[in-house]
Amino acid sequence: MRWLRYEANGQESYGIIEGDEVVAVNGDPFAGYEVTRTKYKLSHVKYLVPVIPRTFYAAGLNYAEHVTEMAKKRGEEPKLPPEADIGYRANNALIAHRENIVIPADAGELVQYEAELVAVIGTKTKNISEHEALSCVLGWTIGNDMSERTWQRNDRTLWRAKNTDTFKPMGPWIETDFDLDAAVTIVRVNDEVTDKFRTNHMIHGVAKFIARMSRYLTLYPGDVVWMGTEGAPRNLKHGDVCEIEITGIGILRNPLVREGM
Amino acid sequence: MRWLRYEANGQESYGIIEGDEVVAVNGDPFAGYEVTRTKYKLSHVKYLVPVIPRTFYAAGLNYAEHVTEMAKKRGEEPKLPPEADIGYRANNALIAHRENIVIPADAGELVQYEAELVAVIGTKTKNISEHEALSCVLGWTIGNDMSERTWQRNDRTLWRAKNTDTFKPMGPWIETDFDLDAAVTIVRVNDEVTDKFRTNHMIHGVAKFIARMSRYLTLYPGDVVWMGTEGAPRNLKHGDVCEIEITGIGILRNPLVREGM
Repeated sequence: MRWLRYEANGQESYGIIEGDEVVAVNGDPFAGYEVTRTKYKLSHVKYLVPVIPRTFYAAGLNYAEHVTEMAKKRGEEPKLPPEADIGYRANNALIAHRENIVIPADAGELVQYEAELVAVIGTKTKNISEHEALSCVLGWTIGNDMSERTWQRNDRTLWRAKNTDTFKPMGPWIETDFDLDAAVTIVRVNDEVTDKFRTNHMIHGVAKFIARMSRYLTLYPGDVVWMGTEGAPRNLKHGDVCEIEITGIGILRNPLVREGM
Repeated sequence: MRWLRYEANGQESYGIIEGDEVVAVNGDPFAGYEVTRTKYKLSHVKYLVPVIPRTFYAAGLNYAEHVTEMAKKRGEEPKLPPEADIGYRANNALIAHRENIVIPADAGELVQYEAELVAVIGTKTKNISEHEALSCVLGWTIGNDMSERTWQRNDRTLWRAKNTDTFKPMGPWIETDFDLDAAVTIVRVNDEVTDKFRTNHMIHGVAKFIARMSRYLTLYPGDVVWMGTEGAPRNLKHGDVCEIEITGIGILRNPLVREGM
């Protein structure tokens, strides 16, 4: 099942995708819903961010090649994360499928995508075992953890490097039927494939993160957990279009513009 | 004006404090409200977290003596933050005035309070000048940035050190009439004063943070900005009661319990 959050006729709603249409529901996939008789062509609605999380979690470093490649660029020894210690991103930065990523006028040239699997929490959860952990996941979507590397390196925190407005595209929808082991993540910049990796080739898997988090943290419906990226992402510039596909979920596509151009 | 978020008769509501009563409103202080004829004795309502923010900002290191004292404890050279680079905390950890801070069973002994002024954003804001920045603040409350120092030092992120459930008491209410320059922050543990400092003795002031943040980030109504703490906080243990007073706002009071005791 594919859950779309969308705007039609000035109203925000959740709906279920059927073919090239979305069937509106009353309610939402978290608290409960009733299917209505209202349908829209997908091409006629505005896609919204699939959910505004209560807490926005992000694994950060979680694929071996990404850790080693990024360390190499900085002239440092790679250091793989020994534990599944979760990090955070910020809701102000979220944008939907098709919306513009806006690079601030004073950003440098090292503005890069990071293609990430996103787990969307469906049920309130505390102290869950790794074996049971995926049972609290409602579904899956795609995130682009846009990063300005100069700020990332020099600022005391990741605030503007990672959380500048528009730097967190998420979507296009939430897919509830997903084969994590079979999935492949593919990045295309202006239709050229720039990255391709096995989605589940993580250092610490989704279930391991959720189990460890839930020892100390209550996870709430609508919380999202971004799972990190692989490889050495390329720079993006004004006029580029960045597409992230995760097979079995869909494609998250966002154009880039630089402020003031 | 003092805005209380509270529960009475099973209903959550905002209200305005008048003497020892709270006058219920329809709506909230952010989107608009109407005063009702319903009143409750303050002693008869349950205090709630004053607001669940869309994004939970925290300055972290922002008072010189705290930076030097904490560095000394770690045997390191103190490094004052050169810029107003904001950080983040997580909504799962928020609790209200009077609720228990629960120390996890496997936490160490270095579990400490941090007494912080909190600015509550009232209006959507982007690109505001430092001179105008405080005009977007609806009011002020108090935060206790509870920290487990061993995890803070050894984990890759601050996730459980700072964001374990119950580690972010905030309240008791939002005060809209506040003289920042006159305010004093006082911490009492079991009624003994353990810290006292001038609230506005910050390295980077509230207006400076908000102006710099708003260059890259849209601030939304209900966002909170925690402003950091001074000095070298003490350890807290099961059975202690921690009170943080900021003169002109009020007192945030929370008992401590250790899990499994």
